[in-house]
Amino acid sequence: MFVIGERINGMFEDVKQAIRQKDPKVIQNLAKRQLAAGASALDVNVGPATSDVHGAMLWLVETIRSVTDAPLAIDTAKWEIMAAIIPKVSGAKILNSSKADTDIATQYMGLAKEHDAAVIGLTLDAGGVPGNVEKRVELGVQLITLAMDAGLNMDKLFIDPIILPVNVAPKNPAHCMQAMVQLRAFADPPPHLVLGLSNVSQRCRKRGLINRTYLAMAIAHGLDAAIMDPLDTDLMNAAITAELLMEKMIYCDSYLAAARRAHSALSSWPKG
Amino acid sequence: MFVIGERINGMFEDVKQAIRQKDPKVIQNLAKRQLAAGASALDVNVGPATSDVHGAMLWLVETIRSVTDAPLAIDTAKWEIMAAIIPKVSGAKILNSSKADTDIATQYMGLAKEHDAAVIGLTLDAGGVPGNVEKRVELGVQLITLAMDAGLNMDKLFIDPIILPVNVAPKNPAHCMQAMVQLRAFADPPPHLVLGLSNVSQRCRKRGLINRTYLAMAIAHGLDAAIMDPLDTDLMNAAITAELLMEKMIYCDSYLAAARRAHSALSSWPKG
Repeated sequence: MFVIGERINGMFEDVKQAIRQKDPKVIQNLAKRQLAAGASALDVNVGPATSDVHGAMLWLVETIRSVTDAPLAIDTAKWEIMAAIIPKVSGAKILNSSKADTDIATQYMGLAKEHDAAVIGLTLDAGGVPGNVEKRVELGVQLITLAMDAGLNMDKLFIDPIILPVNVAPKNPAHCMQAMVQLRAFADPPPHLVLGLSNVSQRCRKRGLINRTYLAMAIAHGLDAAIMDPLDTDLMNAAITAELLMEKMIYCDSYLAAARRAHSALSSWPKG
Repeated sequence: MFVIGERINGMFEDVKQAIRQKDPKVIQNLAKRQLAAGASALDVNVGPATSDVHGAMLWLVETIRSVTDAPLAIDTAKWEIMAAIIPKVSGAKILNSSKADTDIATQYMGLAKEHDAAVIGLTLDAGGVPGNVEKRVELGVQLITLAMDAGLNMDKLFIDPIILPVNVAPKNPAHCMQAMVQLRAFADPPPHLVLGLSNVSQRCRKRGLINRTYLAMAIAHGLDAAIMDPLDTDLMNAAITAELLMEKMIYCDSYLAAARRAHSALSSWPKG
């Protein structure tokens, strides 16, 4: 499981304050704690902390890079910010995220290729989030072909079928699982499959329970990456145990600790 | 989710002692507590408590029937015991279990039809537990056709693809999920799919975590029944949440309590 730690995001109060006060300690501690808990990469999102997204993103990246070489997922919806930041990020990096429209995705794939980065591609275009499995798969296949055209290997493409909150889109969790199974069949090796997991439980009670239950179900359908909170121990345990049950590792009495060590030690690029 | 409570089994010390001392309170309390926790049926297994399996089974059935009309799964591997007990069980009942060999399954299906009972059929024959998905499906299909020949509707057939412990059979959890997806396609309405869930974690540490993680994964592949411990609150919560995410119910803030009420109130026969 390629866990992309979600906690360095300006929507969280501690991160928002740290960005505004330029307090590196909070950010660096979150980076180190997430990696120690089993994260393989770190998401970096300025969120609503400031209108100077470019400046804040650059400061976050430099602040994190002073403590780790782990892959960073640069999380912004704005192309201008992405295009300005990516050349300045040393080491492994992920563009989070591109839509599936041909013109947009082509830009992102090209930028990723140029800087040896990976891309998270959403099965979403100008028409919005698809209401059925078929359109999700169609947009996912489009992302696969555009990545191939750009010269990106499949281990640099993460397809995100977009999970919506279960309380407003009850069919969506099953749709995402069905789309993932199909998308894995379109390339060999297949692209990575990723979800912004916490979204499944937005505005629900029992968020932790819903997140970890869906994570296990999604892993059973081919999910191999997630933007999620590695500091949620129950969630990490569910992820590791689901991978055990998919024979991604062999049981030993200390399998939970062994998996954490294996993932948090990951400094090289994710392999398929 | 059709939860068959596993706790009335002579392998548990409290039940073993209750059987030996003919103490109805322990058994009746376990019956009532499991149903209150969300069980839809109760497994009844003498286990190693006594060599008088027939007498003990009869006493257990009568003891349980004095407090509930819930479906009882008569759990014995011996045909003679099954054939002698089933006619004496009032109300809803399940034969747990038949192997898939034609001669054996034909006997069980006939007995079930005669007494308006359901059958749990194992994808297991004289050759043992299949080592691949194909043989599991083949034996499952054999159970479906034998049930049809006997005049049993699919809502009276529970196919059990047999989950083995993950520490000795690491490919088995994935095999069971793949077999379930295929078996659902062979009849419309499909048969029920059931697992003796706790077996997946035999002799493992973290049994609860492994059980509830696999349960969610299996529900995402069509499992709609399980012999399991409804008194394990985390396990029941995982089952209910997995069904929410499969759109078997709609989210409300009190969805966990609502699902428990719905299932524990179930006195009629399970429908497909």
